[in-house]
Amino acid sequence: MYDSIIIGGGPAGLTAAIYLARKKMNILLLSSEFGGQTAKAAGIENYPGFIKISGAELIAKTLEQIQALEVENKNEEVKSVEKNENGFKVLTKDQTYQTRSVVICSGKTHRKLNVPGEDEFVGKGVSYCATCDGPLFKDKTVVVIGGGNSAMDAATEIEKYAQKVFVLAVTSELQCDAVLKERFEKSEKGKIIYNAQTTEVYGDGFIKGLKYKDQGSGEIVDLACDGIFVEIGWTPSTDFVKDLLKISELKEIEVDQNGATSVSGIFSAGDVTNTPFKQIVIASGDGAKAALSAWKYLIMQKSR
Amino acid sequence: MYDSIIIGGGPAGLTAAIYLARKKMNILLLSSEFGGQTAKAAGIENYPGFIKISGAELIAKTLEQIQALEVENKNEEVKSVEKNENGFKVLTKDQTYQTRSVVICSGKTHRKLNVPGEDEFVGKGVSYCATCDGPLFKDKTVVVIGGGNSAMDAATEIEKYAQKVFVLAVTSELQCDAVLKERFEKSEKGKIIYNAQTTEVYGDGFIKGLKYKDQGSGEIVDLACDGIFVEIGWTPSTDFVKDLLKISELKEIEVDQNGATSVSGIFSAGDVTNTPFKQIVIASGDGAKAALSAWKYLIMQKSR
Repeated sequence: MYDSIIIGGGPAGLTAAIYLARKKMNILLLSSEFGGQTAKAAGIENYPGFIKISGAELIAKTLEQIQALEVENKNEEVKSVEKNENGFKVLTKDQTYQTRSVVICSGKTHRKLNVPGEDEFVGKGVSYCATCDGPLFKDKTVVVIGGGNSAMDAATEIEKYAQKVFVLAVTSELQCDAVLKERFEKSEKGKIIYNAQTTEVYGDGFIKGLKYKDQGSGEIVDLACDGIFVEIGWTPSTDFVKDLLKISELKEIEVDQNGATSVSGIFSAGDVTNTPFKQIVIASGDGAKAALSAWKYLIMQKSR
Repeated sequence: MYDSIIIGGGPAGLTAAIYLARKKMNILLLSSEFGGQTAKAAGIENYPGFIKISGAELIAKTLEQIQALEVENKNEEVKSVEKNENGFKVLTKDQTYQTRSVVICSGKTHRKLNVPGEDEFVGKGVSYCATCDGPLFKDKTVVVIGGGNSAMDAATEIEKYAQKVFVLAVTSELQCDAVLKERFEKSEKGKIIYNAQTTEVYGDGFIKGLKYKDQGSGEIVDLACDGIFVEIGWTPSTDFVKDLLKISELKEIEVDQNGATSVSGIFSAGDVTNTPFKQIVIASGDGAKAALSAWKYLIMQKSR
């Protein structure tokens, strides 16, 4: 019987583990992939304490802390969480674990274009985070793919740095707030291309451009650029608790200010939750909050 | 006219500055003391990315980022914030600044015992944070001063490490949740001393004990110990906005999940807010949230 099982090995889960381990709770950290989205970030410049650090390095340093605290951890993907009389049962492919509380930090995966060249150039011009990588494209030509608020937020941000920003929307209208569209259209640097279905990303070591199909004419258009931001949404990893917890329309776990979910004894933090901002330091902070809420929950229970 | 004025130079304020500077907002960081409570922390072991780091070092590293981003900052204490037709007026002793938004991260100060020896032994056995420093007192005798939930949380936590934990309450009853008291009383390591008014902390390089007045008998009692945790509450720095914002009974700024206060255009994060957990990584994460909320607010305004 564990006091708490932490699901997910990104910044939120690792921070939750640090906090609960230091509270001397008996915990288990389950993750199918340590580091999460962070491990893929090339250069992080907005995490307090490091002028610049790669995601892999930040995760490695945090894992050192986890190891120093002797946190039990297993490389297993969680298939489901069930409530029972003793707390919760956490099931992976081959194992079942019993725990008094759960902290879910299973993150999200960015929706991908699924076109040739995309995977090859991730970190080499293809990015999924404007706040992280926007400043790398000073005076460059950048394409933002997407047509919602995230895409326009990204375009607005990148426009501060870049020389030229194209927004490539697959639809004939944007799905964003009008004010964002208006402002972007006023900018001399900005241009919106509608009905554009990206078909390929190409380059030579680093990206050089993309090709898209003009859905009106059927023509394939070549667009040279130095950077591509893919902002077409993401998929939170919530399938394994979709029948247990209150999940938002965006498939995110709904949490309160302290990381409590709709089920007493289950807490959540990081990109998997309905916090609107997906950032490493925010996931870390909320991981600590969820862990401290779990601890509060555990010490307030009579049976121990 | 600034886009945003950030008040406070602890982890929350510095992180907010990093985020808004990277958004290319025109910002000013005002702080009477860079580093806040963090600068006084001896050894931080729960901040993800560092096995162990002093508060001063963590702040120095974060200030490097602030400098690299060329954030305008001034060493001035804010006296008041006023709303006007262009946004807000921020007043310091000698200056008045105009801004479109404000991010308040002014922190809190721990209430002190105000007895001889207390200041001398801060970081040398006297601590104000059990979550930070509890693990340093493995197998030691520790005294927790206070009688509320914070004190009992601290005692519960320290009891996991220490050999003996005294709780010194100035009153004849504890003001904490009953379950916390019951559990602590069951522990062989724990002892509660009532009606005890601490009068002195003493030591020789490091603390050796304290003296308290038994308010029943009037006797002065000597209690040898290796560590003292002062948990008698804190004072949030909210006087300068007490007539402008919704402030809780604990004098904390009330914020929503995204750091918005009761006044549109003013955001807040860190120890000054009503978040129940006062931790560096939480302040940093919430500083990023408040900054991104401020940015959202700024870009959604028509006039720019």
